[in-house]
Amino acid sequence: MKRTKVVSALKGTDLGKEVNVKGWVRFHRTSKAVDFIAVNDGSTINNIQVVVSPSDFDPDTLKKITIGSCISVIGTLVKSKGKGQAYEIQCKSIEIYGLCPSDYPMQKKGQSFEYMRKYAHLRLRTNTFGAVFRIRHHLAMAIHKYFDEHGFYYFNTPLLTSSDAEGAGDMFQVTTLDIDHDKIKPGAEGKTDYSEDFFGKKVNLTVSGQLEGELGATALGAIYTFGPTFRAENSNTPRHLAEFWMIEPEIAFLDMTGLMDLEEDFIKFCVKYALDHCQDDLAFLNKMIDKGLLERLQSVLKEDFVRLPYTEGIKILEEAAKNGHHFDNPVSWGIDLASEHERYLVENHFKRPVIMTDYPKDIKAFYMKINEDDKTVQGTDVLFPQIGEIIGGSVREADYDKLLSEIHRRHIPMKDMWWYLDTRKYGSCPHAGFGLGFERLVLFITGMQNIRDVIPFPRTPKNVEF
Amino acid sequence: MKRTKVVSALKGTDLGKEVNVKGWVRFHRTSKAVDFIAVNDGSTINNIQVVVSPSDFDPDTLKKITIGSCISVIGTLVKSKGKGQAYEIQCKSIEIYGLCPSDYPMQKKGQSFEYMRKYAHLRLRTNTFGAVFRIRHHLAMAIHKYFDEHGFYYFNTPLLTSSDAEGAGDMFQVTTLDIDHDKIKPGAEGKTDYSEDFFGKKVNLTVSGQLEGELGATALGAIYTFGPTFRAENSNTPRHLAEFWMIEPEIAFLDMTGLMDLEEDFIKFCVKYALDHCQDDLAFLNKMIDKGLLERLQSVLKEDFVRLPYTEGIKILEEAAKNGHHFDNPVSWGIDLASEHERYLVENHFKRPVIMTDYPKDIKAFYMKINEDDKTVQGTDVLFPQIGEIIGGSVREADYDKLLSEIHRRHIPMKDMWWYLDTRKYGSCPHAGFGLGFERLVLFITGMQNIRDVIPFPRTPKNVEF
Repeated sequence: MKRTKVVSALKGTDLGKEVNVKGWVRFHRTSKAVDFIAVNDGSTINNIQVVVSPSDFDPDTLKKITIGSCISVIGTLVKSKGKGQAYEIQCKSIEIYGLCPSDYPMQKKGQSFEYMRKYAHLRLRTNTFGAVFRIRHHLAMAIHKYFDEHGFYYFNTPLLTSSDAEGAGDMFQVTTLDIDHDKIKPGAEGKTDYSEDFFGKKVNLTVSGQLEGELGATALGAIYTFGPTFRAENSNTPRHLAEFWMIEPEIAFLDMTGLMDLEEDFIKFCVKYALDHCQDDLAFLNKMIDKGLLERLQSVLKEDFVRLPYTEGIKILEEAAKNGHHFDNPVSWGIDLASEHERYLVENHFKRPVIMTDYPKDIKAFYMKINEDDKTVQGTDVLFPQIGEIIGGSVREADYDKLLSEIHRRHIPMKDMWWYLDTRKYGSCPHAGFGLGFERLVLFITGMQNIRDVIPFPRTPKNVEF
Repeated sequence: MKRTKVVSALKGTDLGKEVNVKGWVRFHRTSKAVDFIAVNDGSTINNIQVVVSPSDFDPDTLKKITIGSCISVIGTLVKSKGKGQAYEIQCKSIEIYGLCPSDYPMQKKGQSFEYMRKYAHLRLRTNTFGAVFRIRHHLAMAIHKYFDEHGFYYFNTPLLTSSDAEGAGDMFQVTTLDIDHDKIKPGAEGKTDYSEDFFGKKVNLTVSGQLEGELGATALGAIYTFGPTFRAENSNTPRHLAEFWMIEPEIAFLDMTGLMDLEEDFIKFCVKYALDHCQDDLAFLNKMIDKGLLERLQSVLKEDFVRLPYTEGIKILEEAAKNGHHFDNPVSWGIDLASEHERYLVENHFKRPVIMTDYPKDIKAFYMKINEDDKTVQGTDVLFPQIGEIIGGSVREADYDKLLSEIHRRHIPMKDMWWYLDTRKYGSCPHAGFGLGFERLVLFITGMQNIRDVIPFPRTPKNVEF
């Protein structure tokens, strides 16, 4: 007999027919007259209620079907007489796939997120994490659909890299040398001899696919990456992961205005896609996790993002400080904005998302196009309520000489960068791009508070379980 | 003025209007009366021909516009009088974005693929690699669309892992210990002390997301991974990469028949999607790379895949050997099939794809469900013409005791596997899944011969450039 998913059964199209539903028991209420078993199979946050006449079943078997058990149920789909669901199953037979012992760690309701992180493999079976990871899926689809429909090509940049030129963060080293038995051989000048290593040289995990992404954009026109990225930073915060997923589009022939238009249009598309495709899950999270969630998502769609040059932003912050608003970090032109500054602008001053532009060049990366003032660069950070920076982008410097002089000024090691410079040497073109941390987006759209709760198996300092 | 992509211009919808096209010069033919400049922007394999009256332009500027230069052209879209294109641009003005010096490595036609691999950042600008990477994009979209439409959730399993239980291949170690300065400290029993390492223990790059994928499937019902995977195998062959992308769906409540149906339906969907979405690029590859390509792709769609138990397959091979067919590797029940055996079955005997099933348990992984004969397992390999194994899948062992006894029999280290066993301990369910190497699929669909030519920046022994 063909299995019916719970999400389909709950639509009632098979009303009056016999259906076969399979899933895990979310609760089992028992009484003399009737047993209610709620079954969930992950296809929706909603359970299907299975109504069992205890007299029709072996009482010992029925008793064994506790929370967490996996069963297959055959019965008739009927209109429910009870509250809370439109349809339910009048049970004819139950097959037990797997029982669940009483030490099941997800048995109790209302466990803390910290507790559940220890059981990241089983928290997936709870309402909250089911919702979060279904939404995560739909957001990934939104991203692929957006770029596909706009003529971008998905471009897989390498994770193993011998270049560490971007300097975006501390890196993990990757090796096949036998560290375990301390067989590392020092070579010339007391440095390790990598000739026996898999790649014959020192190799790291990428911190960004952007530089390779630019190679794609200056050939295919418009590309995006969507893959894992790594930072070996010893940051134990609710905002940092050692392994996370990044989306990095790069686009030939795009200027500053086009870049800001793209950033805003893209992120609005993702928010709208979630609102359209994840109604039940978002409604649940709005009720249980963050009562302002749906309103905040709707508000992002309603208004144009503010486009604010950094210099203007500093003036607003200085004004606020003058008028008595306390910032822990003092404000002056040239500072890298702290979270409190970004949130003041977004949440207090403008009350909507802000695209901040034209940052001082010394607080931004070497590849950003320098403005004519020679002080600021064509960088764009999209600042969001609650989250702070969600996107960082820029127009890239397309001029070979200017790029090279900036690389020299910053003492960036050049030896592994010849291929990057080639894009400016051979048929250079104006181009731009941005980076978005996928988990930051999932945080914003789910209303979850800790980034460890929006990736299935988080990697953080001293934590690599599962 | 709004930019028109070449792919749009070639559709002729702006006929008679002024358009602005930007891209790279593919050739520049010059004569007294007229110059023809072919411009490509990566949006299609086809170039747009720009017709220039030399008398209207500065001859020195015009001369500089050589192959590989990047230009912006404004002109009127007109019907072409020449052969080879329906529309062309009657040029009014040219802006030069970036010239291209004469040492441009992609200047000559007909360079070898080996030569072009050295310039992987510039080969992206050639017809062949443009076609390959556009097709690669569309295949990735096909995969996401297929699973999304079938109710699977995209599930990001971790790349950094402390478990090496699957034993699918040699692993890369990941560390923040200071190998460079040989500061590795031996701990107790002469083993390296990992307490100072980022994760406080030995960590590797994943060889497969399957085990974590099963955690997702036994909660969300059906998931798929699509991400990078690593093998530190010293294999310098046209079939092996150290870093490649894998697709690994896992599905609760799926049995052997359901698994085979899914494998066949999925791969046919991908082939059909490529045929529907990549007509120009496939036609080019069919003409230039592999004259049998389109016919081979069509043939996959036409017929049902053969479903062949391993034991039957061995009989066919033994029969063939008896009748004089020479195999380098002798055939007998229990052997792991060599490529020559797989290709004999697919290309000579059946002349269509084969799903081979029920392999001897000792040549397959520990997690495969053992058949009642206690000799074979419910594994499925999908064998393709030219490629050999393109998919490997199985029904997973859902019984806690049986799985544990197989783990013990194989002496698989258990200490990091508690979470995997938990899926069988708490509400175990029948489930199945498969793995597909993305580059193998791209190879099959593009007709390319070397796996290094279907991933933008291949990683192989001693090769980690770009």
